[in-house]
This record gives sequence, structure tokens and C-alpha cells, in this order.
Amino acid sequence: MKAQIVTIGDEILIGQIVDTNSTYIAKQLNSIGIEVSHIHSISDTEEAIIETLSLAQDCVDLVLITGGLGPTKDDITKHTLCKYFNDHLENNLEVLAHIETLFEKYIDLPINDLNRAQALLPSKATYIKNSYGTAVGMWMKKNKTVFISMPGVPYEMKNMMEHFILPKLQSEFDRPVIVHKTMMTYGWGESVIAEKIKDWENNLPPHIKLAYLPNLGRVRLRLTAKGSSKKQLENQVISLFDQLYPLIGEIITGFESDQLIEAQIGDLLKSKGLSFSTAESCTGGRIAALISSISGSSAYFKGSIIAYDTQVKINQLGVSPELINAHSVVSAEVALAMARGARKALGSDVTLSTTGNAGPSKGDSEAELGTVYIALITPHSEEVFPCNFGKHREKTLQKTVNKSLEVLLKCVK
Amino acid sequence: MKAQIVTIGDEILIGQIVDTNSTYIAKQLNSIGIEVSHIHSISDTEEAIIETLSLAQDCVDLVLITGGLGPTKDDITKHTLCKYFNDHLENNLEVLAHIETLFEKYIDLPINDLNRAQALLPSKATYIKNSYGTAVGMWMKKNKTVFISMPGVPYEMKNMMEHFILPKLQSEFDRPVIVHKTMMTYGWGESVIAEKIKDWENNLPPHIKLAYLPNLGRVRLRLTAKGSSKKQLENQVISLFDQLYPLIGEIITGFESDQLIEAQIGDLLKSKGLSFSTAESCTGGRIAALISSISGSSAYFKGSIIAYDTQVKINQLGVSPELINAHSVVSAEVALAMARGARKALGSDVTLSTTGNAGPSKGDSEAELGTVYIALITPHSEEVFPCNFGKHREKTLQKTVNKSLEVLLKCVK
Repeated sequence: MKAQIVTIGDEILIGQIVDTNSTYIAKQLNSIGIEVSHIHSISDTEEAIIETLSLAQDCVDLVLITGGLGPTKDDITKHTLCKYFNDHLENNLEVLAHIETLFEKYIDLPINDLNRAQALLPSKATYIKNSYGTAVGMWMKKNKTVFISMPGVPYEMKNMMEHFILPKLQSEFDRPVIVHKTMMTYGWGESVIAEKIKDWENNLPPHIKLAYLPNLGRVRLRLTAKGSSKKQLENQVISLFDQLYPLIGEIITGFESDQLIEAQIGDLLKSKGLSFSTAESCTGGRIAALISSISGSSAYFKGSIIAYDTQVKINQLGVSPELINAHSVVSAEVALAMARGARKALGSDVTLSTTGNAGPSKGDSEAELGTVYIALITPHSEEVFPCNFGKHREKTLQKTVNKSLEVLLKCVK
Repeated sequence: MKAQIVTIGDEILIGQIVDTNSTYIAKQLNSIGIEVSHIHSISDTEEAIIETLSLAQDCVDLVLITGGLGPTKDDITKHTLCKYFNDHLENNLEVLAHIETLFEKYIDLPINDLNRAQALLPSKATYIKNSYGTAVGMWMKKNKTVFISMPGVPYEMKNMMEHFILPKLQSEFDRPVIVHKTMMTYGWGESVIAEKIKDWENNLPPHIKLAYLPNLGRVRLRLTAKGSSKKQLENQVISLFDQLYPLIGEIITGFESDQLIEAQIGDLLKSKGLSFSTAESCTGGRIAALISSISGSSAYFKGSIIAYDTQVKINQLGVSPELINAHSVVSAEVALAMARGARKALGSDVTLSTTGNAGPSKGDSEAELGTVYIALITPHSEEVFPCNFGKHREKTLQKTVNKSLEVLLKCVK
């Protein structure tokens, strides 16, 4: 079973917003065995929409569309669907009642005709409730292809996917099983890895595909297996990965989880009853923001001291000026002192600190651009990780966050 | 002049990564008057690549391709381009020398045959230097359409765009002028705005298009004008926007800048010689991370105290337990006390604080879910903004960050 995704909106084509809707939809479809063969981002013109839908119809069983369902004149998806399906709009009283209720309960403005017009739907469409907004979704069929139209607002779309579309797809369609598993490595480039695992790669069975995903010092190796038995595919993939340990074991850091790394860390901290804090200089709160983005993180996250300025390191983290003079603010010694200071001030079990020169200029230290020290302390251990991430500012900061979460995960495990 | 963008890689189609390359490319092309009509994300199979390129060739002048240029077996773009262009690979000695130099200087591993094979290029291609990696770009032509192939690694691709592709496109092609300008509003939904500006919208000239961009409490109104004189289009767009003040002036908060709001804030702080800090509870460091993401922010950003835990508010920010007992941690009084405490501790001129219940549970306060207080203090003023952002955790946090940056920008202006 194959699908295409169509995201409608000039804001994507002029680079004003990043299309995260298709990422979400693709991931969800994959998880229930539906393969996405093409993602289209197109203009909100009748011509572009009809052309893309016609093209998709010949190729796939399922087309998921987002965007263009708002109440305003520039939103033309509904009218275009009517044209494509040879249909007309009808007032749906159930939807109208829902819109009126939304306005009564949650919206501090009088309802107007544009809002009421959102209850006009193609007569052949099954409508999909929008719990958070006035633009409902639509489920339609042409020949053998199902077309599903959803609003472009991410949380409205996600709610429809979760509560209506995914369950309906699962109950109505036979789907194969697709299993992805991704091994993480750290330290070598993809060409070196490829040479070491050449024979293994050449002997992969035809239903299992390998991809190399290089990203800032990490290379992830993804195996994708397609078949009918989930259990069997999973076992096959695991035993294939097992064969990699004798070849490249020294760089394997684990497997990518469906869970975000910050959520994995959170679960581990919670289950072990450990609290956490950070003392961040170059990362400026990025690690704290990730850790606290996890729902329920108040159970283990105490807080942070973001010591961007050297004086804040001295006053709030108790790092001594002598230590800074002796080693500079970008040093293993200061990273460690920062972590100790934050741990004491914030009363946490585990504390991670960062200090580095991300550039563009050298700031308060003579350390080379790209130099970063990460310190990690627990009730039983103190460790410092010296790193050099090169001269690109944003790259250095992202690599610092990646590396920090990686050592933290390893530590709490 | 029209373009299509093609991003190649199964990691996009299975939702493993978000495609930010096409956003960047689209924005850059637009800025030099090239309209993007379609973005495709496709699988790295010969069939998908050739089908998409053939389809694009009939429609547009320019096709930009990213991805699939790595040294490993799963990267097939180069071979597929050869097939599509009826071409063969040739060893490019200049490129080989560049790859060997990269390994000598920056890469801590011996060069191997896979790396050397990256110097094999289609004989008809003009190559594009990759300053940061071994996968070079290619510029090819078929009939009237130019095809440009770039690596998928974002900073490698961006460097090629900036230093080679955009200048070459500008010098070789006649392009119309495209002007976008986006007005920001805060407070009303798009349907209310649409009704108020109905007549204005109906009278827009045909070469100027309006789009409504709703996002978490903000609606942005974008005008796109196409023509030949930049100055003239800009004046026309400005005078059209001027006509909106009598209609919806009370909700207009300004114009969207090409600059990120955190960069605008940074520039203003720097030019006024003001320093900044934050005291964050619910936002957990997100505001600090944004402010410090700007290159050069160490000139004005002192740091932050992320007081996720109530005890940290008391110990590090000096909020009195009595005040918390009297008003709860989610209150205007505590927000203000947090900002005062951080300002004193961190020694900054301007300080912003956040405290709120983002959920899912109520935490240490009885305030309703979605309740947030933002306090902003300067040497001359103290202000608190009480907000209610609803029950969706991530939405509440994002809205808090948006609102915080907005009041901060207004204040430093």
C-alpha cells in the first residue's frame, strides 16, 4: 500500500515556513505499514492542486492533503476538491453546530458568515471532526484511491490523524509490515564504515535495505525490512545488526529509539529517582529547553544556571576568578567547577555543564574556535569531555547539544 | 522564471528527518526573483529520480536537487544523473586534489577508494566546489532546463548556494522582481480580519496577492507583488498596507522582518547598550536559547536562571515562600519577583521572566492549565502580562515564547 502527501501553501514555496506536517504524517503512515513514495509541496492554485491530485491518483492508494481549508478567500482546497470530484458544496448541519459550539465556548469573538461557511462540504465527503478548530477534514474516494484533506494547523491535523484517520486506515486496509531500526555510531565517517562493512552490506537479503545517515559526527545506519510478520522481520534485523559488532563495535553507541533522546533520559531519571540540572555557557539554555520540553519533566528537572557572561559564572556558580585566570573560561577545570556550582546551588543529583568557544569571535578565552568542554557529575562520579567541533557556530552548538545528551543518556543508563 | 526543488532521501519519506533544505533554497530563490512552483521529496531510487526530473523538465527553467551524493552504495544520484543526461563518469583531477587536501588537513582518518570515487563526475557537468566536504555539486543542462545537484548536508549545500549558485543564477538569467511583505497582527482570528478588510482585499490589483497566515494567536497578512521595478512594487505594497490601519489598526503589531525576532531584539539591545537576562520557569530555557543563538549575543546576554523547581525560585531568585503561599507560583506577583531576583543576581538592565502551568498536570500551583504570567522589567519600568493559552502543553509553551519575544521587542524599541 502506497501513499503520497500533498502540502498546499505558498508559505512553504517561498520558504516562509518549514513543512513539518509531512514529516509527521510520513512517520505515522510508516508505523502502520503504509509506504510514502512522494511528498509534494505545491501552490494554493486550482491548477497546481488538480494536476498534483491527478498525478498521484494513478500511482498510489492513498493521498493525504494538508492546508488551504481556512475561512478566507485564499483558501481554495474545498472548492478545488469539488471540481476534482465533480461534486458540489452542501451545508452540513452537524458541522455547523460544532462550529457554533466552538465559538460559544472558546472564542471571544462573534461568529460571522465566513465561519459559518466552513460547514459547507463536498456532498460526497465523509467529514472528519476537528476538535480544536473550525476547519473539518474530509475523506473522499475516486476510483481506487482515497483522498484525505486536513487543515494545515499542525495540532489540528495531528488530532485528526490520531483519533480518526489512522484507526480507519488500520481497520479498512490490508497492509504489509515495515520495520525500521537505526543503529547509532559516533566517530568515523560513512566511507570508512562502508569499507569495513562492505561484505555484510553486499549480503543483505533483497527485502532489507541499508541507508547511511551522516549528521555532525554521528553516522546512523538504518535497516528497513518489508514483509508480513513483524516479529520475524524484527528478529532478522536484530541478528543482522549483531553481525556488525565484530566489524565496527568500537564506534557503536546504541540504537535510535522512537522516543526522543531527551524523553529516554527523562524516563531513566524518573525511574531511578534522580534529579537533574544544567549549567550552560555556550549552549545558552538549549539543553535545559530540551529536557524541560518533555511533559512531566518537573518530576526530575530542577532548573539551570545559564552563565553566558563570565561574571555570572563567578557570582552564581561560585567559579573562582583565580581558576578562570589560570585555565581560561573554556577549560576542563571551569566546566567542572560550573557543574559543581550548579549542583550545589540547585540541589540536584546529576548536573551537566557546557563551556566553549562557538565563535564567531573568541570571547573571554583564548581557546581555539570550536573548543567545548562538557562536564557531567553525579553523586559518584565526575567526568569532563573535551571536544573540538570546528569553526561553524551553529554546527558547534548543535554538536555540543548532541554530545551532551549522548553522554547524559549513557550515564543515567 | 520558475524552479522546482527535489530533495532525495528515504529519511524524509519515512519521517525520520524534517526537510529544511527546501525551505532554505526556496527562500533564497525567491529573494532573487525565481518562483518555486513545486517541491518534491522522493525516494533514492533511479526510477523515482528520473521520473521526477523528466516531469520537472517540461515545466520549469531550473531544477535544484539535494541529497544522494555521499560515498556509500545507497547514494545513487550521480549515476542516475549520468543515465538521465546520457553521460558517463570521468575522474576529475581537480576535485580529487581537493578531496585529498581535505583529508590531509581536517580528517583524522586515512583516505580510501570510496572517498577517491567522489571525484568521478558526469563529463558534461560543471562542478561546484564543496568547501566543507567531499561531495561536490554539479551544474548541468538539458534542453532549456538547468539542473543543479547538491549534497544533502545543510551547511555544505548552503555554502554552495551562497558562493556559487546564487551569483551564477543572478548573472546568467533575466528575472522578474518578487516582493513579499508580511504584516503581523495579534488578537483576532483570520475570519474576523477577513470580514473587516473584505473590500480592500477585493480591490487588490491582479499582480498583488494576499495570504492569511494564522499561527497560535497571531495572524500574519502577506502581500506578494510581481513586476519589474522593485522600488515601485515596494511602494505599492506599503501604500496598500497603509490602507489597513483605519480598518484593523488596533491589532497590527508591525511588519515581519527578514531578520529573526531574536536578532532584531539583539541589535536593539546592542545599539542601546542594554544587557539582558531571563528567569524562566515553564519555558525552561527556550527564551535564553533563542536569544543566545544569535551570533555576537555575548555582547548583551548575561545569562539566566531556569527555576523549574519552586525551591530554585526561592533559593536562586530570592522569591519569598510567603509570597508563593499567598499567590501561588503561577501569579503576577511571583513572575515579578522572579524577574527582580534574576536582574539583581545576574546584573542585567532588562530582565524577562515566565511562570505558568503548561500541564499536563497542575504542578505546584492551582492556576488553571494554560495560565502564564510574563514579567518584563527595565531600569524604568515593571510590567506583567497575564495570559491564558489553553490546554495544549506544547502550544502553550510556544505561545509563551512568541508573546515574550513580542513584548520584549516592543519594549526595547
